[in-house]
Amino acid sequence: MSGSLVIIGTGPGNPGQTTPQTFEAIAASDVFFGYGPYLDRLDLRPDQVRMASDNREEIDRARAALDAAMRGAKVCVVSGGDPGVFAMAAAICEAVENGPETWRRLDIRVLPGVTAMLAVAARAGAPLGHDFCAISLSDNLKPWDLIERRLRAVAEAGLVIALYNPISKARPWQLSTAFKLLREVLPVTTPVIFGRAVGRSDESFVVVPLGEADRQQADMATCVIIGSAETRIIERPGLDPLVYSPRGVGL
Amino acid sequence: MSGSLVIIGTGPGNPGQTTPQTFEAIAASDVFFGYGPYLDRLDLRPDQVRMASDNREEIDRARAALDAAMRGAKVCVVSGGDPGVFAMAAAICEAVENGPETWRRLDIRVLPGVTAMLAVAARAGAPLGHDFCAISLSDNLKPWDLIERRLRAVAEAGLVIALYNPISKARPWQLSTAFKLLREVLPVTTPVIFGRAVGRSDESFVVVPLGEADRQQADMATCVIIGSAETRIIERPGLDPLVYSPRGVGL
Repeated sequence: MSGSLVIIGTGPGNPGQTTPQTFEAIAASDVFFGYGPYLDRLDLRPDQVRMASDNREEIDRARAALDAAMRGAKVCVVSGGDPGVFAMAAAICEAVENGPETWRRLDIRVLPGVTAMLAVAARAGAPLGHDFCAISLSDNLKPWDLIERRLRAVAEAGLVIALYNPISKARPWQLSTAFKLLREVLPVTTPVIFGRAVGRSDESFVVVPLGEADRQQADMATCVIIGSAETRIIERPGLDPLVYSPRGVGL
Repeated sequence: MSGSLVIIGTGPGNPGQTTPQTFEAIAASDVFFGYGPYLDRLDLRPDQVRMASDNREEIDRARAALDAAMRGAKVCVVSGGDPGVFAMAAAICEAVENGPETWRRLDIRVLPGVTAMLAVAARAGAPLGHDFCAISLSDNLKPWDLIERRLRAVAEAGLVIALYNPISKARPWQLSTAFKLLREVLPVTTPVIFGRAVGRSDESFVVVPLGEADRQQADMATCVIIGSAETRIIERPGLDPLVYSPRGVGL
């Protein structure tokens, strides 16, 4: 008798941003697979089993989770944010496609969550107020020149850009190179937002013009939002400014 | 004494996908501004006031909401999905920027939510598993040729595309034109997902190849996700196929 597998996202980290449907799925699961710090966010019962792994072992984790479900467990695979945005849902699908035929008979569900760019955008105002994109800056799984082509294409097309995985110990220079490239296309006054752990007690949140954007302002857990040429800042006395991208353009 | 203004999103429509933080903000508010069908999703108390308006009156609604907050009300502005994605957060910012100086002193908060493309993607598997973008197909607020340029640029760059506002009575032809343009760039086998009211009892969900994608499959409330050339379909016996975009490309 096979079990089931549900893939969830905890949201940006504040439990007030985790959906009720996700809390229900957690309560109904037996075994939890995920990156340790994401599993730490869950308030598990003593009868629930925790299988933590390193952040870079996604495919092995996916296979182990599928295997446990095939043996009858109610498995929960845990991502931060939304599980479909640079997270575990695609890794599970890859493992299913390349795994044994029997894995295709499993009951697999994905539950949506609040992804980081939406939380950072909400904290800022409405920088994603018109057309936008999400690009991972990690060249672990795609060539760097493809990332550069994509950044140039979307900036020239006027989309707001949310960068995921902007920097890590193994990838120290990519974010600086991305800013340099974007300064060739966008005004140096374009607002750039660095948001980290937004909605949590260790939140960090900074807005700077593109001309002053520096990789030092980001770490692995930062989501960087780069405006379009239309993105604006409304200064407010005694309050954080509002950063927003007008809904209309070019009319 | 001025009040406050909070901008929320109910998520795709299933209350299990509305965040606890959003439910708290609803409970703490006095007056609710929004498009009627979104307000209908709220379970308001008799002492809470409902100010419904038509879908196309966003700036008037934003001004009325700001005005009510200035008079001391605890105002809640209600969007579907996430309030920062083609929704009310940008309209409120626009109204603040162009309104009286006193509006800049208001306590304004935006709370993130689950936007439609994330719910449709979760229902399908992981079609947003690599770089992606969100584009509104409405030419009410931007010229159609800009939309065409953007569609071509992002499809050529290999991004998965989520289309919001794909069709309406006043905009009957734009979606067909978009499919035609995308067929010039992407394989006709590229998966196209039409998701509507995902997670609700009146859900509709269809996957077709780009060569057969037809505007008849969409209405105003549909989110259309168009894969990249890498997006794949895993057929599963007795179950819906999984549609996903592999995390890696070109290595």
